[in-house]
Amino acid sequence: MQDGGGRRVGKGSPHLPPEAKVYFDVSPVCMCHRAVPAMEGKPLVISKEKTAVVCGVPTQVVCTAFSTHILVVVTQFGKMGTLVSLEPSNVTSDVGKAVLTTKVLLGQDEPLIHVFAKNLVAFVSQEAGNRAVLLALAVKDKSLEGVTALKEEIRTCQVW
Amino acid sequence: MQDGGGRRVGKGSPHLPPEAKVYFDVSPVCMCHRAVPAMEGKPLVISKEKTAVVCGVPTQVVCTAFSTHILVVVTQFGKMGTLVSLEPSNVTSDVGKAVLTTKVLLGQDEPLIHVFAKNLVAFVSQEAGNRAVLLALAVKDKSLEGVTALKEEIRTCQVW
Repeated sequence: MQDGGGRRVGKGSPHLPPEAKVYFDVSPVCMCHRAVPAMEGKPLVISKEKTAVVCGVPTQVVCTAFSTHILVVVTQFGKMGTLVSLEPSNVTSDVGKAVLTTKVLLGQDEPLIHVFAKNLVAFVSQEAGNRAVLLALAVKDKSLEGVTALKEEIRTCQVW
Repeated sequence: MQDGGGRRVGKGSPHLPPEAKVYFDVSPVCMCHRAVPAMEGKPLVISKEKTAVVCGVPTQVVCTAFSTHILVVVTQFGKMGTLVSLEPSNVTSDVGKAVLTTKVLLGQDEPLIHVFAKNLVAFVSQEAGNRAVLLALAVKDKSLEGVTALKEEIRTCQVW
């Protein structure tokens, strides 16, 4: 058996309540801070990351594109390691590429780290329109084989 | 009606094929680099990020936890801005907190940036077991109100 009875809707319905007041949660401590949900999903800078085993060692690469810099993090064992700045100078080499000036900002300043850093991320700077690169580097194997493998990983995190 | 019929399994089943050969894709260029799918989903360092409007300006915060450092990026307009290192010294203040030594590694070295950086991320260093903090800071408003708002955002990106 089915109930087929109907009810009138509308006639005799209760009055609408007075216009609802909307309260905003404004903190008395900080008036200037309002998270806007529409903005939260739109990052200002883009990051890409990848974890892979390189030369037998679990390695994580994270690349972040800022307007003037590319931040490249290459880490093994969860260390931040040496922080190297690579700035393109106005001088160009004989093949038209900007010469990169390397500077160790944090960590051990050894000649090898300058060479390794240039070999690793010079292509990032060039491809990113000669942007400066900030490199946080914590890798065990600084061989030529290691550079080639790490460059492949950096390329998969291309954000420029 | 239900079908209750049974079938014999096993007797008369086909022979197993000869042992399958498994080929590995080993690149002749780089013998040491093999991405291991099982590792790819396990990042070595943890990052959290958030975008919100702070003091009317879209702002992105990214925090990354390394074993010895916490990297804190606070950016507006997509800039990397000033890079500040905050290292805890062995000296402790009268309330038992480690004294932070600030150093501008990249960008303009102004007295205000040292004070602002300490106000902004000293709590990160303390809560992270006196780890050093590397701060990339590009903010327009360096008022006390701004610090309070930004600290709230950094706290929502807690990775320590």
